[in-house]
Amino acid sequence: MNYMIIVAGGRGTRMGSDIPKQFLCVGGKPVLMLTLERFHAYDPSMELIVVLPKDQHDYWRSLCERYAFTIAHRIADGGATRFESSKNGLALIPDDADGLVGFHDGVRPFVSDATIRRCFETAEEEYTAIPVMPVTSTLRVVDPRGGGFTVDRSRYREVQTPQVFDIKLARQAFSQPYRPQFTDDASVVESLGCRVTTVEGNKENIKLTTPFDLKVAEVLAGEDFKEGGEN
Amino acid sequence: MNYMIIVAGGRGTRMGSDIPKQFLCVGGKPVLMLTLERFHAYDPSMELIVVLPKDQHDYWRSLCERYAFTIAHRIADGGATRFESSKNGLALIPDDADGLVGFHDGVRPFVSDATIRRCFETAEEEYTAIPVMPVTSTLRVVDPRGGGFTVDRSRYREVQTPQVFDIKLARQAFSQPYRPQFTDDASVVESLGCRVTTVEGNKENIKLTTPFDLKVAEVLAGEDFKEGGEN
Repeated sequence: MNYMIIVAGGRGTRMGSDIPKQFLCVGGKPVLMLTLERFHAYDPSMELIVVLPKDQHDYWRSLCERYAFTIAHRIADGGATRFESSKNGLALIPDDADGLVGFHDGVRPFVSDATIRRCFETAEEEYTAIPVMPVTSTLRVVDPRGGGFTVDRSRYREVQTPQVFDIKLARQAFSQPYRPQFTDDASVVESLGCRVTTVEGNKENIKLTTPFDLKVAEVLAGEDFKEGGEN
Repeated sequence: MNYMIIVAGGRGTRMGSDIPKQFLCVGGKPVLMLTLERFHAYDPSMELIVVLPKDQHDYWRSLCERYAFTIAHRIADGGATRFESSKNGLALIPDDADGLVGFHDGVRPFVSDATIRRCFETAEEEYTAIPVMPVTSTLRVVDPRGGGFTVDRSRYREVQTPQVFDIKLARQAFSQPYRPQFTDDASVVESLGCRVTTVEGNKENIKLTTPFDLKVAEVLAGEDFKEGGEN
């Protein structure tokens, strides 16, 4: 059995809105629902776990009712850090489960079917898979003492989600004490000394963080994007 | 007198179109015209120099006629590298000119007035100014021997244009022999041993490279974006 833990911890400050970003509507529907639909469409048997701040559970349930949203999922409590939120999601998976578990940002509703497939198929073989994209901007390192320099961007990748791991490996990783360098789920697994395998993501798989992103999202929501020439 | 060299060397392969990206229409007008309009609106006395592959000059002139585009500018020949193109643009500036010269990507039509202002005002004091933005994605370094690791993205910046320099400094920089590490105009100036000053760019100031970017551009073209809450 495969699991997807969808982490939505937003409090809605950067969006300049009182509504946490996971509940903002894109294409007439709350973002978090669009995200859940992606994974359900990929594999209706995948177990979905949504991680939300405790004080947002009731609101989310009322939204599901209002939008007649019927995709089955369980709800875990959000934590103070991404690490803690992911760990809380993981705790809802039965002890004897094997298979794969993915961690996905609740506000990445445009992950493609092909990206999800690449992650799961690769993690099946390699125990880990995270989607990445080339860096297209010129990239500079800033020196805290002033100055800086351009780096070779071809050596860098932008990391997306879902980050998919063997369940037992994920459990072992998240049993470690929290460290500040755990910036994403892959970094938690890597701190075990594991190599993480990268696969190709998709360009549309952006994290909706600012009002600018939300405008882009409205365009994307209007299309049935597919992998191919346009990605 | 201040100058802006607008480099448009696109051949249109990544856009999946036969039309070079600088000529694609956004909001009903070729991108390169939108870009020229930005600088002209900021300072109508700024001298504009467009760098285009030689075999596109006639097409560009015919476009200007068709769109009744009347903003004055001169045209320089594109080179085989960004370095060469920038240098060709610089060659059109009179020997006795002083003031500032900027280098801008022809396919960044959404540079804000405030970004242009920050670049020129800072370069006036510091001889150099380039606009940068924080990196919002998780960033990984890939190891050519396999594997990789997450880096602290707070130490990185995404570099935009216009990159603005004292004219004499720019001339000295571009009189150096070409080196492969000259990935942007700032890196040419830095190779003299100069520190380059960074200023804040604007989120909308994206480089239009892929069809995805073009969709985002259509959204941006429909708004009169201003600095403030939404950037």
